[in-house]
Amino acid sequence: MTPTKPHILGISGSLRQGAYSCAVLRGLQESVRERARIDVFSLQTVPLYNADLDGDHKPAPVVALKKAIRDCDGLVLVSPEYNYGVPGVLKNALDWASRPGYQSVLKDKPVLIMTSSPGMTGGVRAQGQLRQTLAATLSRVIAVPEVLISQVQTKIQDGRFIDVTSLKFMLEAFDVLLAEIRSSPATH
Amino acid sequence: MTPTKPHILGISGSLRQGAYSCAVLRGLQESVRERARIDVFSLQTVPLYNADLDGDHKPAPVVALKKAIRDCDGLVLVSPEYNYGVPGVLKNALDWASRPGYQSVLKDKPVLIMTSSPGMTGGVRAQGQLRQTLAATLSRVIAVPEVLISQVQTKIQDGRFIDVTSLKFMLEAFDVLLAEIRSSPATH
Amino acid sequence: MTPTKPHILGISGSLRQGAYSCAVLRGLQESVRERARIDVFSLQTVPLYNADLDGDHKPAPVVALKKAIRDCDGLVLVSPEYNYGVPGVLKNALDWASRPGYQSVLKDKPVLIMTSSPGMTGGVRAQGQLRQTLAATLSRVIAVPEVLISQVQTKIQDGRFIDVTSLKFMLEAFDVLLAEIRSSPATH
Amino acid sequence: MTPTKPHILGISGSLRQGAYSCAVLRGLQESVRERARIDVFSLQTVPLYNADLDGDHKPAPVVALKKAIRDCDGLVLVSPEYNYGVPGVLKNALDWASRPGYQSVLKDKPVLIMTSSPGMTGGVRAQGQLRQTLAATLSRVIAVPEVLISQVQTKIQDGRFIDVTSLKFMLEAFDVLLAEIRSSPATH
Repeated sequence: MTPTKPHILGISGSLRQGAYSCAVLRGLQESVRERARIDVFSLQTVPLYNADLDGDHKPAPVVALKKAIRDCDGLVLVSPEYNYGVPGVLKNALDWASRPGYQSVLKDKPVLIMTSSPGMTGGVRAQGQLRQTLAATLSRVIAVPEVLISQVQTKIQDGRFIDVTSLKFMLEAFDVLLAEIRSSPATH
Repeated sequence: MTPTKPHILGISGSLRQGAYSCAVLRGLQESVRERARIDVFSLQTVPLYNADLDGDHKPAPVVALKKAIRDCDGLVLVSPEYNYGVPGVLKNALDWASRPGYQSVLKDKPVLIMTSSPGMTGGVRAQGQLRQTLAATLSRVIAVPEVLISQVQTKIQDGRFIDVTSLKFMLEAFDVLLAEIRSSPATH
Repeated sequence: MTPTKPHILGISGSLRQGAYSCAVLRGLQESVRERARIDVFSLQTVPLYNADLDGDHKPAPVVALKKAIRDCDGLVLVSPEYNYGVPGVLKNALDWASRPGYQSVLKDKPVLIMTSSPGMTGGVRAQGQLRQTLAATLSRVIAVPEVLISQVQTKIQDGRFIDVTSLKFMLEAFDVLLAEIRSSPATH
Repeated sequence: MTPTKPHILGISGSLRQGAYSCAVLRGLQESVRERARIDVFSLQTVPLYNADLDGDHKPAPVVALKKAIRDCDGLVLVSPEYNYGVPGVLKNALDWASRPGYQSVLKDKPVLIMTSSPGMTGGVRAQGQLRQTLAATLSRVIAVPEVLISQVQTKIQDGRFIDVTSLKFMLEAFDVLLAEIRSSPATH
């Protein structure tokens, strides 16, 4: 009897068709295929957060987002940095997912953060803000290694992530996520 | 001949109908009526940022947002704090407005930030992230006073902002914004 | 046979004789006396960090600081906020204690952070920076509740911390620290 | 008649004898020799901040630090990053220099920040915290370019900073500092 592969939800902070974050996510997805299943959730249709809509009749994409987070064993967030911070697109999704405060689907959920940038800093400021935000949700964010992918545009060719060094690093971090998932109490 | 009153654009980080931020903004609007005109721009219809849409045919609400910022003499941002950070809704709007990098309508624009929260901290973490983000846009953010409105829900009655002490503080900050506007080179 | 009481190390970020942080720490110390022993370590004689001195012959106060952290079951940091950040005094001590990187006495150590300020924000920015710094040390920082003590000067009389509401909150947080200590693998 | 060269004060956040920050500072000093005089102030003897000592009889190194800042036309801070933040050594010096609040020698002072790290991020988190702290002092921090020097150890040979690309970037930033100084009202 084979144990079920962990089921990971991947979310990209960029909506651009050819987003580097999506290429990073696909690269990870392929590399871990034997060990884990990564499904990607697109934020494309998630509306702007509005507390008036956050009641019994939530917008369908919000219901889907929260269900996908509840049902997964762990989250991988891959994001660019916009204006020294988290893209509004991704923060907006976390604002929905974080409700109700301290008791949301993010609580106790293992989360791995990866940020990337065309420059040298690899989106470390977005990463810092994401960690601050996720602390407020009581999710279990992997502390180290911090996955920062610098000069990301040089590491992608024809939509494929081809940088072996970065990938090795991403896989190390992914192993920490899997270990965190195994150590977690079942959350669903 | 009367000099033209400065024209301020007010933006709320919350979309909720009865948002505290909107009440704060209206309170300010009324109190400065003699000295400045504050128009409120709603982020309700601004779509999620997507670089693919950020070309010659931008979504109409984005065009409107950028025009409104370009045409105003100064900005007032009033925002709650979500998950220890800037609401995704507001960050998303700034992500649109900040393009193209270092040459956007936000460049050199005088900006006053006000944050509020039901708790004691008055949204200071959202304020910190907003400052970090606006630094990346080269706008001219008022350094002090930092307007933090704690226990905001106790300062609003029937949708009206009624706290005299906070209002006095907001007006002091608004005077600094007006001084910054007068000292600015014309930007349009 | 009675189980040994957990042994907590308390550190104040202020060196002032009548420091509010010390009063907060003493208030906690007295209130938990039955359940835990809190020893206070003064940073008064810890020298400025200098990597040249961080070898086999460290300054005696640094040796003492690292030993005290190694030997305790958990840490309580109580700090004011200086210039929107962690006091240099406290950061400097953590810089010493954090060495060697990822393998220091801070690794896996349960830590409770309390910040205070004369204003309303309760030192939340210092708290944010402390959390960022401690994340780098792999210590186990209590996520919630975040202990922020606003208007601290009104809560102290004759050097004694007298605010019942804040104290209740501090004790709740302290209980979370004790639970974290019980769940930790022995670290010494 | 030749105009006086601007007089810049350089401060390193690292006390190590062979500190990279000092090499960066010396590299800058030599390169701008024709246009500006950079004097370096060592933080070696600045004691830990203690409000009890911050009265009429301040420690001599503190008096010297404050005088040096008051007398200079602009500041250059060069710093490593320790534990995702500003070295305690440098923050401690700024804590002294920042007093009395909002009216210190840092008020209105033009400041250029440079951070470096052995890794890729160039100390951007220390840079972020420095900006937050200096905002509280009302100094005039150069917004862009942000000087981040990654992999700094590869750019120094025999104590000399030899990386031409980084140096070019540093000089661009230094020119912005000089422009800010020329535009400043005389502050002494």
